[in-house]
Amino acid sequence: MKVALIGYGNVGRAFARLVEKKRAAFPFRIVGAHTARHGTAYDPQGLPVEPAFGPAAPDIDAFLAHARPEVLVELTPLNPESGQPAIAHIRAAFQRGIHVITANKGPIAFAYAALAEEARRSGVEFRHEAATMDGTPVYNMVRNNLPGVIVNGFAGALNSTSKVILGAMSRGLTLEQGIDEARRLGVAEADPWFDIDGWDSACKAAALANVLMDARLTPQQVERRGIGKVTPDKLAEIEASGKTVVLVSRAKRTPGGVKLRVRAEVLDRHDLLASVRGTSNLLILETDLMGQLGVFTLEPGLEQTAYGLFSDLVDIARSL
Amino acid sequence: MKVALIGYGNVGRAFARLVEKKRAAFPFRIVGAHTARHGTAYDPQGLPVEPAFGPAAPDIDAFLAHARPEVLVELTPLNPESGQPAIAHIRAAFQRGIHVITANKGPIAFAYAALAEEARRSGVEFRHEAATMDGTPVYNMVRNNLPGVIVNGFAGALNSTSKVILGAMSRGLTLEQGIDEARRLGVAEADPWFDIDGWDSACKAAALANVLMDARLTPQQVERRGIGKVTPDKLAEIEASGKTVVLVSRAKRTPGGVKLRVRAEVLDRHDLLASVRGTSNLLILETDLMGQLGVFTLEPGLEQTAYGLFSDLVDIARSL
Repeated sequence: MKVALIGYGNVGRAFARLVEKKRAAFPFRIVGAHTARHGTAYDPQGLPVEPAFGPAAPDIDAFLAHARPEVLVELTPLNPESGQPAIAHIRAAFQRGIHVITANKGPIAFAYAALAEEARRSGVEFRHEAATMDGTPVYNMVRNNLPGVIVNGFAGALNSTSKVILGAMSRGLTLEQGIDEARRLGVAEADPWFDIDGWDSACKAAALANVLMDARLTPQQVERRGIGKVTPDKLAEIEASGKTVVLVSRAKRTPGGVKLRVRAEVLDRHDLLASVRGTSNLLILETDLMGQLGVFTLEPGLEQTAYGLFSDLVDIARSL
Repeated sequence: MKVALIGYGNVGRAFARLVEKKRAAFPFRIVGAHTARHGTAYDPQGLPVEPAFGPAAPDIDAFLAHARPEVLVELTPLNPESGQPAIAHIRAAFQRGIHVITANKGPIAFAYAALAEEARRSGVEFRHEAATMDGTPVYNMVRNNLPGVIVNGFAGALNSTSKVILGAMSRGLTLEQGIDEARRLGVAEADPWFDIDGWDSACKAAALANVLMDARLTPQQVERRGIGKVTPDKLAEIEASGKTVVLVSRAKRTPGGVKLRVRAEVLDRHDLLASVRGTSNLLILETDLMGQLGVFTLEPGLEQTAYGLFSDLVDIARSL
């Protein structure tokens, strides 16, 4: 199966290494890589993990026309206000009958219903396992393993930066020191206030709700209150009473539609949502037939995000 | 798809209700039910949820010959020392080219490798999602969503009775009062010492390790130390220091093979394994490509076990 990548940073490289490592069992080949910074590389026989980039393709359509992949892996950074340009890249692939996998939550947070419908009309697959929980099976779990189940809501501790910052504060450090720690771990968004204000969590809530609950909402429609007002003193007081603060993304199906909320919640210290620290994440689904169940990943890194892309690729190959 | 059941207690009835409820979307039909106590019922057009049982079929082969199902759902109670008679029932189905789904952990704890090989040779599916975690996708998660991943170990809080008893003790009650509480909740094995001594956890550890790690072990080979020596006083002392006791099933791949251990472990009160209470269960998998990830279910009941059977049935139907 021939794969092309748009974006080739750390996740792209980790994905390329994984494809190379698993080639004997899974015959995937990266035939093109397009980046804004380094240019474009093609090889119908398969690119090495560190390709020699040549001049940049003039646009995405020209890149796809030249690379001729069966699957596009979209890895551009999130634009958290619009989901672009990833959405345009995905549409360009659909129009050429190319399956798409993305690690970018923007497209599913801003335009899932439309993109899913366009994929269906084009007869291609659209997958996004790595977009929300670093490769933990959540979309594929519901799709593959929970047939007939209706998701009525969820609660997730999904933002790493807020966990790192609150962890730092509970050791007496300041918000700014917490931000520095998140930066050193490489988990903070370019602007850490996207994490602190709950915007990243709102994007994840919209992404999950759009796919799992057909919510048709955008991140702007998420009621949102971040951790910006938490101080080390307030947190110490809360923790002295056996509780703690967690930035939680919640969804609930109501007669008026799906309601989404992101909030710095005060939870029991041993609440399941409070039991994951650092980059770990955890999601509880509320369902009709399976009650409350969920998934988590402990301290995932780039390799897990890359694996999420890989698992989507295998799933597409199996479905053909 | 025509389904026959061996065993028709609470789980069987919950499964029959679910099949009936979902008939429009999933055209499954229960054509036979065989029980030791009530006799046998057949209807090629589909039995009602409360069938009129007639005389018992003389043996399982005669039952299968008459009912002519495509899938057998095996629901006899666990014999925790041998896995029988479920193993014999499953083999009888395989020999007739019938797929098998079981909610009984005995067969996979005692004979998984042999049964999987026999299913393969007979060209049928053998599924067991409901056998270990009340329907939570674990076997199907690894099978469907984690292609190419090697499971190198696991840690699970999988036994409900021990959680209920330890919960009772931490409120100052005795072991005996805790057993009564577990009985009232309907979670204790007929002999609660199967739970307290860690035998149920050992069966679950062997089942998981056999399927997910090709361990080829039996529950007898699990190093085992239950919660029988925990007293309310000891537990109070442990909890005063911010810790608690959890009966944990662990597996580890070693150069000498897979090692399995069940032990009442002293864990931090806010350890992930300590954060599930009552009938809730949680499993952490250690993997090569996805690091540590896991699944949990909060307070599952019979309906969730029934759904585990149903999800296996859908998966078999999809794979044909």
